[in-house]
Amino acid sequence: MHAISFIQDLAVIMLVAGVVTILFHRLKQPVVLGYIVAGFIIGPHTPPFGLIHDEDTIKTLAELGVIFLMFCLGLEFSLRKLFKVGATAFIAAFLEIVLMIWIGFEIGRWFGWNTMDSLFLGAILAISSTTIIVKALNDLKMKNERFAQLIFGVLIVEDILGIGIIALLSGIAVSGSVSSGEVFSTVGKLSLFMIVALVIGILLVPRLLAYVAKFESNEMLLITVLGLCFGFCLLVVKLEYSMVLGAFLIGAIMAESRQLLKIERLIEPVRDLFSAIFFVAIGLMIDPSILVEYAWPIVVITLAVVLGKMLSCGMGAFIAGNDGRTSLRVGMGLSQIGEFSFIIAALGVTLQVTSDFLYPVAVAVSAITTLLTPYLIRAADPLSIRLGKVVPSRVARVLSLYGEWLRSIQPQGEGAMLAAMIRRILLQVGVNLALVIAIFFSGGYFAGRIGSWLSEWVADAGQQKALIWGAALLLSLPFLIAAYRKLKALSMLLAEMGVKPEMAGRHTQRVRRVIAEVIPLLSLLVIFLLLSALSASILPTSELLLVIVVVAAVVVALLWRWLIRVHTRMQVALLETLENNRDHSH
Amino acid sequence: MHAISFIQDLAVIMLVAGVVTILFHRLKQPVVLGYIVAGFIIGPHTPPFGLIHDEDTIKTLAELGVIFLMFCLGLEFSLRKLFKVGATAFIAAFLEIVLMIWIGFEIGRWFGWNTMDSLFLGAILAISSTTIIVKALNDLKMKNERFAQLIFGVLIVEDILGIGIIALLSGIAVSGSVSSGEVFSTVGKLSLFMIVALVIGILLVPRLLAYVAKFESNEMLLITVLGLCFGFCLLVVKLEYSMVLGAFLIGAIMAESRQLLKIERLIEPVRDLFSAIFFVAIGLMIDPSILVEYAWPIVVITLAVVLGKMLSCGMGAFIAGNDGRTSLRVGMGLSQIGEFSFIIAALGVTLQVTSDFLYPVAVAVSAITTLLTPYLIRAADPLSIRLGKVVPSRVARVLSLYGEWLRSIQPQGEGAMLAAMIRRILLQVGVNLALVIAIFFSGGYFAGRIGSWLSEWVADAGQQKALIWGAALLLSLPFLIAAYRKLKALSMLLAEMGVKPEMAGRHTQRVRRVIAEVIPLLSLLVIFLLLSALSASILPTSELLLVIVVVAAVVVALLWRWLIRVHTRMQVALLETLENNRDHSH
Repeated sequence: MHAISFIQDLAVIMLVAGVVTILFHRLKQPVVLGYIVAGFIIGPHTPPFGLIHDEDTIKTLAELGVIFLMFCLGLEFSLRKLFKVGATAFIAAFLEIVLMIWIGFEIGRWFGWNTMDSLFLGAILAISSTTIIVKALNDLKMKNERFAQLIFGVLIVEDILGIGIIALLSGIAVSGSVSSGEVFSTVGKLSLFMIVALVIGILLVPRLLAYVAKFESNEMLLITVLGLCFGFCLLVVKLEYSMVLGAFLIGAIMAESRQLLKIERLIEPVRDLFSAIFFVAIGLMIDPSILVEYAWPIVVITLAVVLGKMLSCGMGAFIAGNDGRTSLRVGMGLSQIGEFSFIIAALGVTLQVTSDFLYPVAVAVSAITTLLTPYLIRAADPLSIRLGKVVPSRVARVLSLYGEWLRSIQPQGEGAMLAAMIRRILLQVGVNLALVIAIFFSGGYFAGRIGSWLSEWVADAGQQKALIWGAALLLSLPFLIAAYRKLKALSMLLAEMGVKPEMAGRHTQRVRRVIAEVIPLLSLLVIFLLLSALSASILPTSELLLVIVVVAAVVVALLWRWLIRVHTRMQVALLETLENNRDHSH
Repeated sequence: MHAISFIQDLAVIMLVAGVVTILFHRLKQPVVLGYIVAGFIIGPHTPPFGLIHDEDTIKTLAELGVIFLMFCLGLEFSLRKLFKVGATAFIAAFLEIVLMIWIGFEIGRWFGWNTMDSLFLGAILAISSTTIIVKALNDLKMKNERFAQLIFGVLIVEDILGIGIIALLSGIAVSGSVSSGEVFSTVGKLSLFMIVALVIGILLVPRLLAYVAKFESNEMLLITVLGLCFGFCLLVVKLEYSMVLGAFLIGAIMAESRQLLKIERLIEPVRDLFSAIFFVAIGLMIDPSILVEYAWPIVVITLAVVLGKMLSCGMGAFIAGNDGRTSLRVGMGLSQIGEFSFIIAALGVTLQVTSDFLYPVAVAVSAITTLLTPYLIRAADPLSIRLGKVVPSRVARVLSLYGEWLRSIQPQGEGAMLAAMIRRILLQVGVNLALVIAIFFSGGYFAGRIGSWLSEWVADAGQQKALIWGAALLLSLPFLIAAYRKLKALSMLLAEMGVKPEMAGRHTQRVRRVIAEVIPLLSLLVIFLLLSALSASILPTSELLLVIVVVAAVVVALLWRWLIRVHTRMQVALLETLENNRDHSH
């Protein structure tokens, strides 16, 4: 009977995993390592024999483990947290990822591996392990120190960049080539998709969850959450992105819901169950003979991870203005790879573009670096003291001068407020334009289907195109107007600041007004040209285009207030969700 | 890709289940029905087309749903609750099950179905649905009324009898025949297994869980609980019982743990997830054409369930001394079938002994009776009033006299205390003897393996047997001595009560002492003969037996106190677990 062999597999997994994790817990090692070791023990490569009969089903459940892991990562991530993360985190994470991908790629090439293996190795080394770091900092009781907060910030930025890497790798693996144009277009499309998904998701999902939560049934809430999670993953897969991205995004969307705590409490046991299976399944794949064969690369890569991350993250933290000791601690805390690396390695296996040895090598490096993490964190302080003694005093003075200089050029008081305002306006313009672009994109994407549906009434293909393009423009109007108004506010602000009476004299007011009018109009024109280019496939002939634009202008003139109100209502709803949640988040 | 079609299935299941259950919740119908309808909608038998691609994997997960459902039923069940349940529950549940099996069997025969179908139909009708009743009473806000408490008692007894029915059916289905001897031996072995599993389980499992709970990691506790659950299910399967029994038993064992509340909180989301899949999978199997074809049997069976359960449970409650109104409410509350029926129907499908139509028919009857439940509960009061008016006053007087008579013959004060004492002693003797029998059984079961292991030192098969039998006797000594001492206490009690000085005159003391000595010795002799018969396969020759018994007698004489102490310590540990839990249970 199929079911019984399956239950037997689960029993073996859970029993061995339970015993080994208790053992690892007593040895003060992370539970995750225990799972991998448990998988190794019951795996087919270790004596006495393979204890797992139905490896396919276990692997399917392990995929669920990945989804739940990323979903929970998304739940813990939140847009607000991302906005709060300082420059340090952005700079450190960016430096780390770029440097580690490069190092990994070069190491791969040096060992004579093929391009795809080397590229995936770089991606595998790029991202540190949230699970392991949180565990280690918890154990060392350092969770509330400043450097720990910086590390958490870096991890949040890493998550979002990691999602981008996964999307990029999928694209590259399918097309088989790496061109900068393709990278640019992939990143662009991905950002567009994420912005649109987040805006629409945050408008709809928290409201739906609040409605379901009213019934006060944990069961219904859980089923709804799971339905949304799997459904969104499916949608993302249909759009040819990775399921991982979908799980993370829907998690991030639900993180803005008032029911966040309850959802986390309900989803945690499910995640623990499936992620245990995921990590055990990783252990199942370890073949000791591969580890022996690749012992040398494993050592080199481990050293590269530890030193590379220490250097890149430490440098990033230092450049962003932290003192040497904190920077070193940040760098040494992030010196390991973990669950993200497994997911990327698994992606390579699934897409069948990487060699068989890459996964076990990644697991081995992760295991060694995980074991090193607590020692590295503890070693950071003594090391910084010793370094302080060794470094020549002139170098030390230059370094400390850099910190002071950086603090001196940072905008203070009114300047800082102004910078925040400008950032905010640019963000709003960006979101609105992303929505406009998404509308035109979808118009182009569904043009064929809409056209065949329209053909009952409108036979001419050109007129169909005009209708679709016109409808897209109509739908975009609230966002276009909003973007225009934000841009106008920005240019007024800039005109006020840039054109001082000392310079322009009695023309001050006039110059300012011209600038305030010209900038937004110019940008709208640029946007319009961009849109035309992006929606080339559905762009009507110029005569029809003119008609549409005239109609749109009339609509704008007549419905100006109403369009503004529609947009304001949406914006209020969005901000309400984001604000409301603030009191409830942890 | 396999994983993606699986995720797609899960997404469809969860999305449709979510929407339908919200709808059903708004219509004030149980969520369970919503799941079944959701399964029906996405199933292969309804237009537009089957939305599920990988039905096998879904069915495997549905099996997990059964395990988690029964495990949680076990967690809610508890030995203490069973002891507290009054005579009403026992009588009503017993009457109900016997009557419903008989009615179901006769209906099946009447429709010309084969013996196995008819037998399974009887079993399907036997047990009411805890889920549905709890939901209905909750909705009607009647959970704390007296008749509701009686119903919960009946449900607890039903659970344990239902487990027995499943074990019996498995045996009958495999052997293909129903003989009273086999039924007796199956029930005997099952009771033995359950007692031994409960005693050993309650001694070990709560201690293990308490140890794991010390680490304060929900993840580790969950993995341990799941490992024990699946592991025990596997053991039970190897002993050729149903997995369902294993899940229920290990749940009942964990119910005695101090971590019960935490375990329930952790396991609930996992159960909700998999039980949703289970109920959806039931819906998947419904074929409307079968329902149309078997419309007539469905109507008849539905009527039989409603009327049969009303009558049998109501009568049982009345016989046990409840007034007519309460009895009617108990009977009408229990008038439906549910999850247990699905499990029994699934058993028939798995063992391939029932026809294809039985499962959908059971589902249809369950759906109809579930929908009727709240109306029946509400109709009980008006019906009892109307019945009170219709029934001739003489009949009514006889009925009320019965209740008074019953109350008059119930032991009061000292008598009730004495009866409780005797019950307690008999229970302890029974448990101890069950352990002894289990030891000898295991000896016989493993005799072959132990023999081949012993053959290095002891070549002669007769001597091997003697060694095994002797070891079994040695292991049994603490329990035998405990049983002997309990029996002695009981016979002293009986002698004190039975032999009054008015009758025996000056011989009173002597007669009492003789009775107090003879009864336990006689019972021990009977036990000994029984053991010999049960362990016939490993019984040594009479000379060796004599030697063993003499050795055992010497051991008993020398180690009497130590053996008593060993037993007392075990008993204390067991009772401590049962008592300790009392403060924490809900």
